[in-house]
Amino acid sequence: MDYYSDHIKTLIDELGRLPGVGYKSASRLAFHIVNMPQEGVDRLVDSIRNAKANVRYCKKCCTLTDDEYCPICKSPGRDASTVMVVENSRDLAAYEKTGEYHGLYHVLHGAISPALGIGPADIRLKELMQRLETEQISEVIIATNSSLEGETTAMYISKLIKPAGIKVSRIASGVPVGGDLEYIDEITLLRALEGRVEL
Amino acid sequence: MDYYSDHIKTLIDELGRLPGVGYKSASRLAFHIVNMPQEGVDRLVDSIRNAKANVRYCKKCCTLTDDEYCPICKSPGRDASTVMVVENSRDLAAYEKTGEYHGLYHVLHGAISPALGIGPADIRLKELMQRLETEQISEVIIATNSSLEGETTAMYISKLIKPAGIKVSRIASGVPVGGDLEYIDEITLLRALEGRVEL
Repeated sequence: MDYYSDHIKTLIDELGRLPGVGYKSASRLAFHIVNMPQEGVDRLVDSIRNAKANVRYCKKCCTLTDDEYCPICKSPGRDASTVMVVENSRDLAAYEKTGEYHGLYHVLHGAISPALGIGPADIRLKELMQRLETEQISEVIIATNSSLEGETTAMYISKLIKPAGIKVSRIASGVPVGGDLEYIDEITLLRALEGRVEL
Repeated sequence: MDYYSDHIKTLIDELGRLPGVGYKSASRLAFHIVNMPQEGVDRLVDSIRNAKANVRYCKKCCTLTDDEYCPICKSPGRDASTVMVVENSRDLAAYEKTGEYHGLYHVLHGAISPALGIGPADIRLKELMQRLETEQISEVIIATNSSLEGETTAMYISKLIKPAGIKVSRIASGVPVGGDLEYIDEITLLRALEGRVEL
């Protein structure tokens, strides 16, 4: 592979380490970056450095933020008695975009996965339990993904919290809005049937 | 959008400017970068800075390289009488991977596109003509993409070079029309090389 210069090769290698970026995409990005104006490269590099240096975990909900507490935990307009548990900050953002959830969040930064060796101690579960002790929380909504890991995590958290007498719920699993029944997998169809609600 | 911190938002914006990176991919990359170990972030940033600062055009074939001349132009084992004209360095790499082409290259860094306002003066065509005057070149193989712009460029170069009595060929069809050289399998690339026809 001596048809690319060393610096280009190093850049392709580094870009190729990012999730979802294969060798071809990394090459395309590398040549794009080399051809970018210097100020564009500076902005890109600065944004990476600044994010890495300044972003930290919110002391309350553990989402990634610039300050000690994130904008949601700091907001006086939120319902502090409800906490939605999500796997990561992008899932939090997905629910924020609906504009209809007004409680707080708790970000686990992962899900329990025995296959990958990720146990309850490897996610932000201890922080959630501490919040349940110190804050006035009446309901915990578990919004982990509808995957094996997400379901395992939901079951685990549910068993952990229920003895404390706090209401624990799980977001509904079923047919997505606009979804076409014939293209939906059987497990989802079964879940939708089991979770049917009276009209 | 105040569910993401400012530094994360800036990073997502900058990553989203890269080709083929949409908002969702940019978010995924941004959170991955923030969660990377510091040394990984340093390596990524350094590779970007180094590539931008040190990569330049080869004085002979115009490909992107670290030194005055690229490894291929410097190699004594290459057949200096044959020059393959490609649109960019990734297309050069695609032909190098076949391991069956032993001539030199000339990288245009673009293709003639009246629609995009890219004329013959905007690609490295002047440099090619200078090479034909100073070097002992007996054949020019035009390996621009099999797109409208690539074909236009091939025709233009052919008409420009032929009066000088130099053999001009075009890689054969076999490369599917509308296809992008860098994404095509090596056997197809070889067939195209073997089946080149004189223009």
